Parts: sequence; C-alpha cells; structure tokens
Amino acid sequence: MTTPHLKNSTTDAIAKVRELLGDRLSTAPAVREQHGKDQTWNEGAPPDAVAFVKNTGEVSAIVAICASHQVPVIPFGTGTSLEGHFSAPYGGISIDLSGMNHILEVNSEDLDCRVEAGVTRKTLNAALRDQGLFFPIDPGADASLGGMTATRASGTNAVRYGTMKDNVLGLTVVMPNGEVIRTGTRARKSSAGYDLTRLMVGSEGTLGVITEVQLKLHGIPESIAAGVCAFPSVEACCRTTIETIQMGIPVARIELVDAEHIKAINAYSKLSLPVQPTLFVEFHGTPDWTREQSERFGEIAASHGGGSFDWATKEEDRLKLWQARHDAFWATKNLLPGKSETLATDVCVPISRLAECVEQTRLDLEANKIYGPMIGHVGDGNFHVVLFCDTNDAGELKRVKEAYDRLINRALAMGGTCTGEHGIGSGKRAYLAREHGPALAYMQAIKRAFDPLNIMNPGKNAAI
Amino acid sequence: MTTPHLKNSTTDAIAKVRELLGDRLSTAPAVREQHGKDQTWNEGAPPDAVAFVKNTGEVSAIVAICASHQVPVIPFGTGTSLEGHFSAPYGGISIDLSGMNHILEVNSEDLDCRVEAGVTRKTLNAALRDQGLFFPIDPGADASLGGMTATRASGTNAVRYGTMKDNVLGLTVVMPNGEVIRTGTRARKSSAGYDLTRLMVGSEGTLGVITEVQLKLHGIPESIAAGVCAFPSVEACCRTTIETIQMGIPVARIELVDAEHIKAINAYSKLSLPVQPTLFVEFHGTPDWTREQSERFGEIAASHGGGSFDWATKEEDRLKLWQARHDAFWATKNLLPGKSETLATDVCVPISRLAECVEQTRLDLEANKIYGPMIGHVGDGNFHVVLFCDTNDAGELKRVKEAYDRLINRALAMGGTCTGEHGIGSGKRAYLAREHGPALAYMQAIKRAFDPLNIMNPGKNAAI
Repeated sequence: MTTPHLKNSTTDAIAKVRELLGDRLSTAPAVREQHGKDQTWNEGAPPDAVAFVKNTGEVSAIVAICASHQVPVIPFGTGTSLEGHFSAPYGGISIDLSGMNHILEVNSEDLDCRVEAGVTRKTLNAALRDQGLFFPIDPGADASLGGMTATRASGTNAVRYGTMKDNVLGLTVVMPNGEVIRTGTRARKSSAGYDLTRLMVGSEGTLGVITEVQLKLHGIPESIAAGVCAFPSVEACCRTTIETIQMGIPVARIELVDAEHIKAINAYSKLSLPVQPTLFVEFHGTPDWTREQSERFGEIAASHGGGSFDWATKEEDRLKLWQARHDAFWATKNLLPGKSETLATDVCVPISRLAECVEQTRLDLEANKIYGPMIGHVGDGNFHVVLFCDTNDAGELKRVKEAYDRLINRALAMGGTCTGEHGIGSGKRAYLAREHGPALAYMQAIKRAFDPLNIMNPGKNAAI
Repeated sequence: MTTPHLKNSTTDAIAKVRELLGDRLSTAPAVREQHGKDQTWNEGAPPDAVAFVKNTGEVSAIVAICASHQVPVIPFGTGTSLEGHFSAPYGGISIDLSGMNHILEVNSEDLDCRVEAGVTRKTLNAALRDQGLFFPIDPGADASLGGMTATRASGTNAVRYGTMKDNVLGLTVVMPNGEVIRTGTRARKSSAGYDLTRLMVGSEGTLGVITEVQLKLHGIPESIAAGVCAFPSVEACCRTTIETIQMGIPVARIELVDAEHIKAINAYSKLSLPVQPTLFVEFHGTPDWTREQSERFGEIAASHGGGSFDWATKEEDRLKLWQARHDAFWATKNLLPGKSETLATDVCVPISRLAECVEQTRLDLEANKIYGPMIGHVGDGNFHVVLFCDTNDAGELKRVKEAYDRLINRALAMGGTCTGEHGIGSGKRAYLAREHGPALAYMQAIKRAFDPLNIMNPGKNAAI
C-alpha cells in the first residue's frame, strides 16, 4: 500500500485548497499543533494545513484535490478522541468539520434526525429538549456526532440504548476520490445490500470523511430514577449487574466506580460516600415502572451485600450524583499533581469475566506500584483504567507500558476486545492483529479497495 | 468481474469434493432441484452438485477446491428465503449446512451463545427454554441461524429486540479462498477495527460462507400480555403505533393486519374478528409493567377509535391469537385456489409515511384488480404485500409486475428501502442501484476485493 509522502505536491494541494477556502485554510503553527495532538500520551504530529469547511461540497472538492496530489486527508471533529486519531504522521490536510454545525432535520414522529457532522451531542440534545426527545450516546466529552460515528463511540447509556453502531441510520460520506455517497435510508431496518453504514461507523476516517449523520432519537423518559449503592467487593458489583440484566431489568446506566475513585470523588466533590466499590445506576420509564425497577434492583443488590440503595427521582439530586461520577477523572488527577501524564484506556470483556478482569488488573497495578483507578460501564463488560505516570521516570514509564500491555492481553484472553469505545487510532494499532488474526487482512483489503492511494488518515486503524 | 462458467472444471471440482465427502456429495436431480428453487416466482436454477457438510473444515476444503477450479459456491440453510437467494444460475456446488446443527455453547450469565450455522431458530429456542432464555428473531419460517444472518432477517419482535444485525456478536466465516476467519469477540461492544460482522450480516453468501454464529440472547419475560384491537382505518392503526413508540412504551410486537387478511383469517381459523384494520400487539415485562403497558396502549388506541382492547396473559390464549396472525398467509392462499403463484414481497418506510404508503398501495391494487392483502411489522414501518397472480394469464402477470415495481418506487420515494427483511437475492437486484445510487459501486468494490474470481453466490445481491 502506498504511503503518501509527496511533500512537493502538498504545497500545490494547499494552494488549490486556499483558492477554494481563502482564510478558512490555515497553516498557522498553533492551529496545526492543536489539530495534531490529543490530550493523551499518544504521539502527535501536526498536519501541513487545516481546512475549516462549511459543507459537503467543500469536503468533496478538498478530498479530490488531495487525491490528485496524493496528499493525506485527516478528518477532525472536536479533537476529543483518545487514541491519536487525528495526528498527521505523514503530514497532509486536516479537515476541521466544526463549522458544519447545522441540525438539518428532526422528525419527531419517526424519532430520527439528520445533522451535519460537526454538531456536538450536547448541542443536539439542547435543540431536541423542547420536543421531548434526546440522543443517548454520551462519551465523556462533548464530541461531534461525526467524530462519534467515526470512532464508534458509546458511554454510560449504552447498556440500554446501544452504541453509535446501533443509533446511526445512515450517512453522507465523501469517499477517498472525492465522490459523495449516501448510505442507509430513513427506514428503521433494511435487507438491501451490504451494510456500508456499519462499515463506516468505527472506520476512524480511514475510508472516507463523514459529513452528515442520520440518527435514531429516543423520547425523554417520563420518569428517571438514579441511585448509588456501595458493595463489599468488585465481584459483588458484577454479580449484581449480571443478575439485574438476566432478570430483564432494562437498566439505563450501571456504572462501577472502584474504591480508589470513590476516595478521590469524596475529596474533590466534598461527599462522604463509603470508600468501597460502588454502583451508580439509573432507570428510565414511567413513575411506577422506574419505582419497580429500583425496588427489584435494590433486592438484588442487598442479596450481594449491597448497602442501602437510595434512589433519587428529582432532577437536582440526580444531576449531583452523576456530576460526581463524571468528575471522577478530574478528581483522581487532582490527587496526583506530580504525575505528568495519564493514559485513559479501556477494554471490554464478557460480563461473566468482568470481576476477574478488574481484580487481576487491580492486583497487577498494586504489585507494580502503579496508580490506576478504574471505572466501568459494567452492564456492557466495559471498563476504563486511568494509568497515572511520571513519563520523566523511565522505570515507571516502562512499568506502566508493560501493565497496559498485560491488561489488553488479559481482556483478549477472556474473549474480549482491546477497546470497547475509545477506538484504535494510532495508539492501539499493534493490538488489531492480536485481536482479529486473519480477519485483519480483510479489513486491509477493504481499505485498499476504497482508498488505493492510502490518503485517508494513513497510519490509523486498519490503514497502513 | 469474472463470471464463472468453466463447466469442464466443475466436473473436476465435483470429483475432488466427492473424495472428501463420499456419499454426502449428491448430484441426484431431485436433490439439485430442491436446492435451486425457492417457494416464490423467482426463477430457479439447480446447482451441479450438493455438498452436505459436517464442519467448518469441510466447508473450507470445498471452497478452496471451488476457488482453484473457479466453480461457484452457493450456501444453503433451510431453503426458506424468498428472493431466489440459493438458485445457481451459473451452476456450481451448493453447500448444504443443515448438518451443522450443534449448539456449541450457551453462556447464560453473558446472555450469549455460539451455534453452528445449520441450527434453526426453533431448535435453539427449544434448547434454551429450560434456562429461561430465548432468541427473539422470528422470520415466518423455521430458518437456520446461518441463513438468517446471511439475509439480515428480522420478524415480529424486531421493534423491541432488533434484527439479526443487532443480535449477532460474531461469526466464523469461510472466505472465498477457503480461509477461515472469526469476526467479532464475545464482548458486548467494541471499537476495534472495521465491523466485518455487520458486513457479513446481509451479504447473502456473496462474501463467504457463514459456518458459526455467536448470538445475543434474552431472558424469557416474566409476564407476556398480548391483545387484538380493531380500528376504523389503517391510518388510525399507524397513528396509534407512532404514539405508542413516541411514549416510550417498549412494545414487543405490533402487527398491522389489514381487513382483507382479517376476512381470510376468520374463515380459516373460525374466528369472528371485526373485518377492519387490526393491530395485534404484545408486551413483555413484569406482571405490573405489562399491565401498565397494556393499559397505556389501550388509552392511545381508544383515542384513535380503536375498539375494546382485550388482552390475554395466559399462554394458551396468546398462542391462539398469534397462530391466527401466523396463519394469515395460508388463510389468504386458501381463499384463492385458482391463483397459481403468490409473490410475498416487503418494503420498509419511515413510520410517519407508513399509512400513506399502505393506503396508496391498496388503492393501486384495487384499481388494477389485484388481490394483495397486507401485513405489517408496523413498529418498524415494514410491511408485506402478498400479491396473488395467475401466471398463466399474461395480462394479470404484467399488471402484478407493474404494481410491484410501483410499490418499491413508492417506498424509495418516501425515504424507505426496497426490502426490510426479505433481502435482495436474485429477485430484487434491479432495485439495489435505485436505492443506493453511487454507494452500490463501493459494495461491488468490497465484493471484488474479497472474491476476485466471483465464485461466491454469483448473480445475487451486489455480486455481478
């Protein structure tokens, strides 16, 4: 596969894109830096230029220019992804889609909408609220919906509402030769042809630039009940979760917060939660039904040694609760100002193996003197480890990297995946082959078929 | 793209497969006929031989032989698909997977299982019952789970539980060169690489032979409530459905049966349902929760002129109800013994357009003197039309074919799809380009990349 590195032609391509965009094409070092390095320890590399686009037509024209000059194209949403997705190791032009921020249509009867790729999830939800609708997928950041599609994002609501894979109905995509295609229809289901929509979801900009997204929406639940329950062990949290799901209780969120995180949250948010593994849960439905779900959950929790399960239906109380959960990352960061870097990683395993995976990881980190609190979207078997590291300490860096590698191998050995929701980017490419074996060659075959010049986000995911 | 038609090498390939399978390779005309023609008016063509396989290794060996001889491979499950999926217009070897009928594992804690592709949905459900689990996808026929995966099947439960797309976690696939790959993991979600699982779901045997399927399972609901409600119009049925879904009532099944079908059902099943458009509904949950869902639905139905909504929670009553619904096809067929053929087709539109689409279709059929009762998985916007036709009457055949074409164009014009669940096969190939436009070329690019010799089920879906 071609590796694009024709620096001379980059200058020509930039000149042509400037003709098209004028001031909206920037080569300022600060802009390029910001578009080439994420918040993690993954290595960054600035693109040669950043194009601030306004519509699909411009993206198409830019990609066509880049194709004719064999110059890399790197799509950019809000820059909140975590695996070096938008760095430019081979240079090229970053296409910043944040200016494509229009909600194109909302169809309340069909519970769907169409948005430009740069619309963020919070912007969409603010616009939907008056119609009693919401879009449930909630990665931590206020990411763009195009970026969330490209990285197959999920979050705390995925146990009930699924991930981006389940909530994207169709896409507008600029393909690597500049051609614009629409995938999917507005029908809820289809058996017509290969599922190009799902192929694009999670392709991380390596197969095309997503410019519009058709999404499923959901009605805002009439009643929401949320609560917190402390347990004697991670095992007890996991068993409670398994039984809750087996019983068919449609829990909307069920989050494991480990004792380390609780300690940090208490300090940061001035709370006095018991310093124990804790489940944060939420139920959606009618008032009677959320009450029944909460009560049934409370019984299951009690049978596994869970403390009293207090549940709140008032919005104010719920928000306070979830704020504490969302602050967990900053709370831990606050505890350790000396650590220069954090590596927030995630794996996902069958739920029956989750307690074992979390516990083995905890013991591994403890044995290697690594501070790595854990938070889990436990209903999906997905958990995050925030590895703190002083990267100036070569010994510590080595220990952290080795523990990270063992974590992923542990998840794979348990029938899991190297990433539940953060994606591959440049950071986890080494694990793709380990996870997929001979199937990886077929991903690469698709890449070659769609993008023979390898200009679309080279060096990421299955792209060489 | 190559069209395989090297008849001489077929003889060689058959000889080699016979060395491998002995008696389990058949060239008997009756066996070949049965493996080349479905129950519809789609043209059939027998394969040159039928291989009754026992395991993935045999499939791999056969596909490798076929690849080296450029001989077509046509996967075969139960032969219940409806769009000429398994005919052999270019000859070749049909791989009958019905002997791969083992349930390999059931993981009740993870709510998943792994089955060989020949296991049928009813066999799986019979085996799961004792564990309190079930697999919800229910196309009319007792199809094989491999076939259901390959055609992206759904059915009456899809409004609540999704389609095969949503319920397949991973696959074992023999690729067109004979290589065996595994897609997906046992994790509930993943962001690792391109979604080959979803690419294979719905590929109709054109990208590889599915030999094992990892499926999501669900707990059998504690309580099931079902009922029937007659309405003054199809419009009222659709409005009731839209509001039910907007209200967040997680209806498990909501089926529209038109007045024509009710007439036939009454005669066939000796019932006396009002001859009006009718909704058959079902709710799953706890006893309190199904009661609440039923009551809320009853209120919505009443506001749209729905008759009294009687609901049954006793299994016997429910089964009787659904038996009548499932008998609808035979009931109508019984009414018109003179018609030599029926064309059961389906389209799917945004739910807001469903009433209009059904009504326009009814008027069109009426104007053209075509008997075509309709049944809809109305929660998904998906409906079936059973077109009756005396194919010996050239004028009638022409009228039916033209009405069929208008039906599909109507669905596409409304933002829908040419098939919600039956698939493309050979029967709907003409509509793929109409639905997907320039996106079709990317499906064909995948086909060429995976199967450059075009041996996998040629003439179906996106395969030339």
